[in-house]
Amino acid sequence: MTLVRNKQVILRNYVTTFPKDSDLYVTSTTASVKFKLPAHTIITTSKEPAVIVKNLYLSCDPYQRLFMEEIPGVDESTYSQRVYYTPGSPIYGYGVAEVLDSHHPDFKAGDLVWGTTNWEQYSLITTPKSLNKIQHTDTDVPLSYYAGILGATGLTAYVGFYEFCSPKKGENVFVSAAAGAVGQLVGQIAKLMGCYVVGSAGTKQKIDLLKSKFGFDDAFNYKEESDLDVALKRYFPEGIDIYFDNVGGKMLDAVFLNMSVHGRIAGCGMISQYNLDQPEGVTNLMHLVYKRIRFHGFTVRDHYHLHPKFLDFILPYIQSLI
Amino acid sequence: MTLVRNKQVILRNYVTTFPKDSDLYVTSTTASVKFKLPAHTIITTSKEPAVIVKNLYLSCDPYQRLFMEEIPGVDESTYSQRVYYTPGSPIYGYGVAEVLDSHHPDFKAGDLVWGTTNWEQYSLITTPKSLNKIQHTDTDVPLSYYAGILGATGLTAYVGFYEFCSPKKGENVFVSAAAGAVGQLVGQIAKLMGCYVVGSAGTKQKIDLLKSKFGFDDAFNYKEESDLDVALKRYFPEGIDIYFDNVGGKMLDAVFLNMSVHGRIAGCGMISQYNLDQPEGVTNLMHLVYKRIRFHGFTVRDHYHLHPKFLDFILPYIQSLI
Repeated sequence: MTLVRNKQVILRNYVTTFPKDSDLYVTSTTASVKFKLPAHTIITTSKEPAVIVKNLYLSCDPYQRLFMEEIPGVDESTYSQRVYYTPGSPIYGYGVAEVLDSHHPDFKAGDLVWGTTNWEQYSLITTPKSLNKIQHTDTDVPLSYYAGILGATGLTAYVGFYEFCSPKKGENVFVSAAAGAVGQLVGQIAKLMGCYVVGSAGTKQKIDLLKSKFGFDDAFNYKEESDLDVALKRYFPEGIDIYFDNVGGKMLDAVFLNMSVHGRIAGCGMISQYNLDQPEGVTNLMHLVYKRIRFHGFTVRDHYHLHPKFLDFILPYIQSLI
Repeated sequence: MTLVRNKQVILRNYVTTFPKDSDLYVTSTTASVKFKLPAHTIITTSKEPAVIVKNLYLSCDPYQRLFMEEIPGVDESTYSQRVYYTPGSPIYGYGVAEVLDSHHPDFKAGDLVWGTTNWEQYSLITTPKSLNKIQHTDTDVPLSYYAGILGATGLTAYVGFYEFCSPKKGENVFVSAAAGAVGQLVGQIAKLMGCYVVGSAGTKQKIDLLKSKFGFDDAFNYKEESDLDVALKRYFPEGIDIYFDNVGGKMLDAVFLNMSVHGRIAGCGMISQYNLDQPEGVTNLMHLVYKRIRFHGFTVRDHYHLHPKFLDFILPYIQSLI
């Protein structure tokens, strides 16, 4: 039986307000891992047979801040799997891994997977339903893309924008945190659909990227706007048909005022609120009724079944660039 | 040409905070109406030929408070028709009327209609698309029902609950302002669908009615609850699958904390906010994302085409009681 050191990123304690470097630490001395599962099947708490993986790529995403503290009213039943990080244990996130051993019928040694794994070199995965097999021989794209555009990040953008917001050519689309991993893809998918797309972000460098590289029609720095309602009216004089919300709070409140009749909002995340002691109050909800808006909160975890459809959509674009 | 006095309910001035008796007045001395349209077709600002009606029944509804003042960001384009009442002119609302004369091909003298009309005895209707013909010979129900359960009130309950919330047998349903015209019907339709239904209201008499007459499984007086979150957890220990929101504000905020995964919210109105100078801040929106909730704001005006389907659904129940 092979034993190796297993470098891990550990949460020291639950985090309040802004996370600090010292909230996490790396250990590589005490943990060890068996590359082979024992001969008998391990039936885990999720009632699935376990899988051992070697982690290859990890993605750092905003929701990870959320799970660094307990959230009232949210528990394991909310996501049908572990939610909060455990102080003293490695944090988890989306990544790409290679299966080393498996008791699960869907996976065998040598398989490549993307999905939820731990921030460590080797992981015992007790919820293999959170893993998705990569059919890598079908594509020529770098494997690391499955920790980004071809994995949860891309699927999040696709599901939230395409499946929930039903974009039509010529519609006006607004994306907040538009230079983030998901936001920049939403904008690019929106352009592929023939929409007019404006993004917001918080630095000049990000705004330049949105306009010069990611193909947004326009972009603005929300930190330079004294009145977000005025800013949105400047870019959307005819109203916003689709809003992809990554930030919540004051921006969402201003968007409500500027939505078009029968507009759609994808609720992906609300990062402006994660580090606050108390969330900000949002006051313009009545505009959801006035304008007959559909707000759809979602998590990509519910939509892994759409991944093949998403790949059919996105891979040709990526392969045409390689 | 016949001239008659036309009693009218007039808005004196735009209303702020709580409306007072003196905000409206009745006049019956100065106005007059011609029973016959002139021989040439009147093409109105809505580009529809006009109709003259005699109003028979009028419904008094919460949204009428909204339109007693101008709302920033809401105008005629929002509803494709007049929104705000005009000080010095009669207010409008849903009602039942008899057509006296018509240049519109869909209506002729003697037709009975339900829809938007003015609070006066006789009205020149310049937006006849807001009128719906009543096929009264098909039913034995009192004509006044088309100002309530068989008109906009019933259709609102049906569309919001049945069409937007897709109820399934056994689901847990919460209705606020449950003793109101729409709320009491939502609860009764939910019971017909086999749901568990709890309502909130603001007096003991209303709570008694909800439990003893309208068939709600339970009901509570929100004014007697110091903590709405605690109250909702008492009635929905397993969470709320469907919330029919008539009130907004603090109740909506508490509901967000208690929604079940993949729950649905019909945004019908937010009466708790209409008389406030500034709307209250709602802080728990992130639960729309955690629980992957669909919030659907709506107005019955968009869904008149569902009225025949609604009648097919509701009339047998009503006729069985007559």
